[in-house]
Amino acid sequence: MTEHPPVFELSPVGRVRNDRHDRSALPHQGRGRDVRSVIELKPRFEPAAREIRPGDLYWVLTWLHLADRDLLRAHPRGDKSRPERGVFSLRSPGRPNPIGLSLVEVTAVSGLRLDVRGLEVLDGTPVLDIKPYVPEADR
Amino acid sequence: MTEHPPVFELSPVGRVRNDRHDRSALPHQGRGRDVRSVIELKPRFEPAAREIRPGDLYWVLTWLHLADRDLLRAHPRGDKSRPERGVFSLRSPGRPNPIGLSLVEVTAVSGLRLDVRGLEVLDGTPVLDIKPYVPEADR
Repeated sequence: MTEHPPVFELSPVGRVRNDRHDRSALPHQGRGRDVRSVIELKPRFEPAAREIRPGDLYWVLTWLHLADRDLLRAHPRGDKSRPERGVFSLRSPGRPNPIGLSLVEVTAVSGLRLDVRGLEVLDGTPVLDIKPYVPEADR
Repeated sequence: MTEHPPVFELSPVGRVRNDRHDRSALPHQGRGRDVRSVIELKPRFEPAAREIRPGDLYWVLTWLHLADRDLLRAHPRGDKSRPERGVFSLRSPGRPNPIGLSLVEVTAVSGLRLDVRGLEVLDGTPVLDIKPYVPEADR
């Protein structure tokens, strides 16, 4: 019998704008604290974002649209001198469900536009969700 | 003109098993460190999980399948004495793309079965992704 796994559908709530236009411009995980980006939210999600304030820390979940979804093992940071690891033990984009997780600091808010620092993704990356950083749950 | 936003498809890599069968059994975010759960991975994802070890900290991304996706504002922890906030400033399940984010400690690994502590979701919740906790990126 063919397996028909359930499929869930996501639709972006916004999009990232920054000056990173190809992968070579991206720092590796945890080394991109200074990347400045703008999250442009779709107008209908404005009520969901109304309490976001400059200085706050948020998780941003993104859809890593260029990622290889068939990848199960890879060299850490693409360094072939290091042994391969399973993608569930790597933070690289290639994975079955390529959802990016980035901790950002909000630096400015203007209507549907959130200026953030620390979002290590390419220009045009779809945003799926935004969640507050909660110290007692997240460390 | 009608807007046709892009849609992305997710398929679970596994499922959560625990003794939480309804929402009243769930602690609020950050208060469920002692919930014990098992993540049952699908066989084809074994290569992706091979380096996961007891004692390690991982992020588990889940699909909160019972969540209200139309919710944009809600009372924190459902407490109507507190003012409503946008869901992007809440960690509650109801949100446009209901992806759960939980920091867990792996307590045992046996083939496709990961025993974890701290996964505050209901029995049967689909698992979307597993990522290592990276202190320099995540705090």
